Amino acid sequence: MSLYSEIYEQPLVLSGLLSRQMGEVERIARDLTGRRFDFAFLAARGTSDNAGRYANYLWGAHNHLPLALATPSLFTYYNQPPELKNALVVGVSQSGQSPDIVAVLSEGRRKGCPTLAITNDPHSPLAHEADYVIDIQAGAEKAVAATKTYTAELMAIAMLSAALSGSPQQRAELEKVPEWAAQSLRLDADLQRIAQRYRFVRQCVVLGRGFNYATAFEFSLKLKELTYTLSEPYSSADFMHGPIAMVEQGFPVLAVAPGGAVFDALLDVLRKVRNDQSADLLVISDRPEALELAHSSVPLPEGIPEWLSPIIAIIPAQLFCLHLTVIKGFNPDSPRTIRKVTETT
Amino acid sequence: MSLYSEIYEQPLVLSGLLSRQMGEVERIARDLTGRRFDFAFLAARGTSDNAGRYANYLWGAHNHLPLALATPSLFTYYNQPPELKNALVVGVSQSGQSPDIVAVLSEGRRKGCPTLAITNDPHSPLAHEADYVIDIQAGAEKAVAATKTYTAELMAIAMLSAALSGSPQQRAELEKVPEWAAQSLRLDADLQRIAQRYRFVRQCVVLGRGFNYATAFEFSLKLKELTYTLSEPYSSADFMHGPIAMVEQGFPVLAVAPGGAVFDALLDVLRKVRNDQSADLLVISDRPEALELAHSSVPLPEGIPEWLSPIIAIIPAQLFCLHLTVIKGFNPDSPRTIRKVTETT
Repeated sequence: MSLYSEIYEQPLVLSGLLSRQMGEVERIARDLTGRRFDFAFLAARGTSDNAGRYANYLWGAHNHLPLALATPSLFTYYNQPPELKNALVVGVSQSGQSPDIVAVLSEGRRKGCPTLAITNDPHSPLAHEADYVIDIQAGAEKAVAATKTYTAELMAIAMLSAALSGSPQQRAELEKVPEWAAQSLRLDADLQRIAQRYRFVRQCVVLGRGFNYATAFEFSLKLKELTYTLSEPYSSADFMHGPIAMVEQGFPVLAVAPGGAVFDALLDVLRKVRNDQSADLLVISDRPEALELAHSSVPLPEGIPEWLSPIIAIIPAQLFCLHLTVIKGFNPDSPRTIRKVTETT
Repeated sequence: MSLYSEIYEQPLVLSGLLSRQMGEVERIARDLTGRRFDFAFLAARGTSDNAGRYANYLWGAHNHLPLALATPSLFTYYNQPPELKNALVVGVSQSGQSPDIVAVLSEGRRKGCPTLAITNDPHSPLAHEADYVIDIQAGAEKAVAATKTYTAELMAIAMLSAALSGSPQQRAELEKVPEWAAQSLRLDADLQRIAQRYRFVRQCVVLGRGFNYATAFEFSLKLKELTYTLSEPYSSADFMHGPIAMVEQGFPVLAVAPGGAVFDALLDVLRKVRNDQSADLLVISDRPEALELAHSSVPLPEGIPEWLSPIIAIIPAQLFCLHLTVIKGFNPDSPRTIRKVTETT
């Protein structure tokens, strides 16, 4: 099964990316330091858009860079793109093929902005439009649902952040990512057992916040693509502004809640849905207070700094989705309807 | 019923806002023309965040302004805000109370950025932090689910766009919005009948694209808040990148598809889910090709330019949600769990 082996390849892909590409990423970071930009303008779709959400938080928090997620239709159908001045224009795409994402980079290049492609194909149209290319080197991804290219995109985003910061501590923390990824794979048998419980779930929400807002989106996307479960991702703050009304007794709430700056705020929301609304909780976390609250608890390896936790926290979620897909009798390698490369304009 | 009367107040609120505030908006636009900014940085939550999505497209397309939606937790929990340089910092909030939104404006002001509040309370903490305030003057909104303050926020965003463009044609088109809003209310009885069909719907998706991406989000939020239906909003392009796999025979797809630049692309997706996947379709549109495709068709008034269509297209969606709430036996004025003013940090 391609999906299974691709999930298992992740520790090796991550260590290969770090060892082979960190030099190039540091060169890009040095070069970017000499160029003027006030904000990043990032275009992506699907799984890569979730990687973009990680960049939004990480580059904002660690590199003080405001980030705008592009609205590609302004570049294609409307033909009225915003004026890209003093922007670092970034495209993230596994295939590097989607015309709408390429169009955003072309416009950035036309306006003299620095352009960066993060892609699994350094010969793709997207890479061709970019001044700088980070080749995520994840190898061919055959399963339609992206797994190893997602964590590799996150790793590339984290590597660039650390290179721009020039922090030796962050550089050292990056080295531990492959080992944490390998540790999280050891949850496989537990997740197979846990997934049984969710056989008949038709709908759920996935909560995350801060750096792991991206993880909530990606967990939710895998549930939809693979298990056809309608799952909606939320920041726990946005969830309080309305959607929490949906939660009734036994409603499944999945949460990605590693320790960190937003942990207490997220824990408050989990306590509320658990204790006041009798929600059914699955929690991915390294913190006992959160795990103890859950009906299904998924313990992350200890000692992962918050900024790198999204690369690890998605791995048990991928395994959970894989097992649930098999349990439901679907094909994990080729979900109905969708194809590997979606070319939207 | 507050919700019902607030939906019906919209034509009057919109005409009052235009006549009483357009002068002030034009003054703000003139003043902003003299100030330097390369992009807009907009903070909002819930319904107001959906108004922000409209600004993202409209200010991008008509005013060439890239827009970044803020990640408020970077300003609060992480205390590591991005460096706001050459940004127009905007906060949108009905109450003007939510501390995280206020924190973004405070940071913008600290960095010398021009700051703008769009709010229903010109004496709120948010307004206090802003150089410029657009008072949407919607009057007290008693129902927990926002309706008139949403369309008034959109109107304020459209008024500022037209004032920045200085286009007499756009200025004239704004004048017609209250009448179009009144026309769309005449769909009320039809929507009450249509809503009967959705009594047992537990989950659905809502599609929109371009300017009406915002409408899809707001329609979906009202469904969740009022009817407790798990409804997920999508751009039709993002939908093709994975989530379309969820659609099985009879799956309810709701679409906001007025004529305009993205219409043909959205129509292609609607044809695909209808013809290839046997989805159940509700369509809000002014175009016969889209309406004929639907099981439930909601015809919009004719002649609305695409840039203003989000202000009108949400009104039948509000009525649909109101009726569905009553049909399901819930209280439209006070959904369970949520309160009117949600103060998140």
